[in-house]
Amino acid sequence: MDLKKILIVSGTHGNEINPVWAVNQFNKQLNTIDENIEYKYIIGNPLAYEKGCRYIDNDLNRSFSLIKKDFDKSIYEINRANFLVEKFGINGTEPCEIAIDLHTTTANMGTSIVMYGRRRKDFCLAALLQQKFGLPIYLHEKDEKQTGFLVEAWPCGLVIEIGPVAQNFYDVKIINRFLIIISSIRDEIKKLKNNQIKLPKVLTVYIHQGSIDYPRGKDGNIVALIHPKRMNQDWNPIKKGDPLFLDMKGNTKIYKGEDIIWPVFIGEVAYKEKNIAMSYTKKEVLDLPNQFCDEFLS
Amino acid sequence: MDLKKILIVSGTHGNEINPVWAVNQFNKQLNTIDENIEYKYIIGNPLAYEKGCRYIDNDLNRSFSLIKKDFDKSIYEINRANFLVEKFGINGTEPCEIAIDLHTTTANMGTSIVMYGRRRKDFCLAALLQQKFGLPIYLHEKDEKQTGFLVEAWPCGLVIEIGPVAQNFYDVKIINRFLIIISSIRDEIKKLKNNQIKLPKVLTVYIHQGSIDYPRGKDGNIVALIHPKRMNQDWNPIKKGDPLFLDMKGNTKIYKGEDIIWPVFIGEVAYKEKNIAMSYTKKEVLDLPNQFCDEFLS
Repeated sequence: MDLKKILIVSGTHGNEINPVWAVNQFNKQLNTIDENIEYKYIIGNPLAYEKGCRYIDNDLNRSFSLIKKDFDKSIYEINRANFLVEKFGINGTEPCEIAIDLHTTTANMGTSIVMYGRRRKDFCLAALLQQKFGLPIYLHEKDEKQTGFLVEAWPCGLVIEIGPVAQNFYDVKIINRFLIIISSIRDEIKKLKNNQIKLPKVLTVYIHQGSIDYPRGKDGNIVALIHPKRMNQDWNPIKKGDPLFLDMKGNTKIYKGEDIIWPVFIGEVAYKEKNIAMSYTKKEVLDLPNQFCDEFLS
Repeated sequence: MDLKKILIVSGTHGNEINPVWAVNQFNKQLNTIDENIEYKYIIGNPLAYEKGCRYIDNDLNRSFSLIKKDFDKSIYEINRANFLVEKFGINGTEPCEIAIDLHTTTANMGTSIVMYGRRRKDFCLAALLQQKFGLPIYLHEKDEKQTGFLVEAWPCGLVIEIGPVAQNFYDVKIINRFLIIISSIRDEIKKLKNNQIKLPKVLTVYIHQGSIDYPRGKDGNIVALIHPKRMNQDWNPIKKGDPLFLDMKGNTKIYKGEDIIWPVFIGEVAYKEKNIAMSYTKKEVLDLPNQFCDEFLS
């Protein structure tokens, strides 16, 4: 796969405004063409961005599996997903080989890489970034309730997730992290194109296992909150007996599982509606054959 | 004025969810009637709260000056403001003598008291709370662009503003601060009713002077952000030459005024649409005659 065009998406969620700012700032400073690789910088969900909300009708980053001949034309985000794939998809009018989707989270996850499934090319790119910065990789897979992510619609694609930052809140610190990541991704892709990369032998990943909802009453309302001892503790292991939630009467709900779990997206504001108080992972070290980058090099 | 009924409002902005939780929690633990004073706990904007947004059609906390015979019935918040005054206003069916409106801010303001104008009874209640906790008082007045606040529609009323906390984000620390404040307000009101109060001789207030907008381009878009040195520095004085904003090229915009100013609501997310990057105040110590509480005692 010869790398000619790369898609960098910000504002896939309209209220995650720091990557949009970072991309604009980056774009003003550097040319979009870098050693014959053209970068397309687009806003994923421009209407939601304008309105300052996550989405209009449907979460755009869960809409890419819904594209088919008979999709509901009245749903803005499915139309938009369809447009993006028809234009920038690998068979589109301006085909991009890689899609990078820039997100923020209200959770204290720092800068992390999210992979969807175990595609070789994704492993290759994620490993190069992990090698450079030691970033944690969240491998999202086998979750039937959450499908249709943007990057899955491209042959290779990663999400960069940076937090904590509130929705619609500009934070120069967060913007600066995005600027570094955008610049580094361009560097690594340039090396890939020029066959100058060397993969690490192993990769540490946090593999998605499931999600935990808030305790809720019969009416569906949340009746207990993230326990203060759990707040901001993303990536830190939870073991049997550790506090998870605190209810109005001061009662603590503890974790009762036998396995140690590594939580992510603790208290993410946007996930309340998805019935997720936190997701949890297991930490694994995977072997990484050098061939994983072959598809880029061939 | 005999104190019989007190109105405690949370969720006047639907995405400020911590005070709603705190009131629910408080309400479950203590009776609403306290030494013959009845407390009415209500959600200001229930529809916006349900949807997780600040408001539906119009900021409810700017809608109370818009109540008149011919107001636009299609605007949810003006209807709601009218309903609240007709029910809980001093001439309503369940008249309340004091309204306390509980808010959160994304700015790093800690716990503060907001007064609207210089009503004697407001000074009295604010002074009692400042005396107890040393809380800063933001005196909002003479701002033609911002009118129609809820508490202005009652003979006495204060806003309690607690931050920093993101919109729609539950934070037990913030909730606990509200629990303390609600409890303390009840204590002070009980003392007022029983003539057991002693006012401090002076009151320190931060008097609203104006607001500063983000630098914007010709299209109205924001072109520079709160400078990192200004972030989280609410209440800390700004003097000539101090940095205010940082643009995409790394240029700093400084404060050029001669007077020292004390900023509040720095970077408040909800104020971008109001063209406010921060408001600024002057700090003054006011004399506080004991007669300011007379209207409560008579």
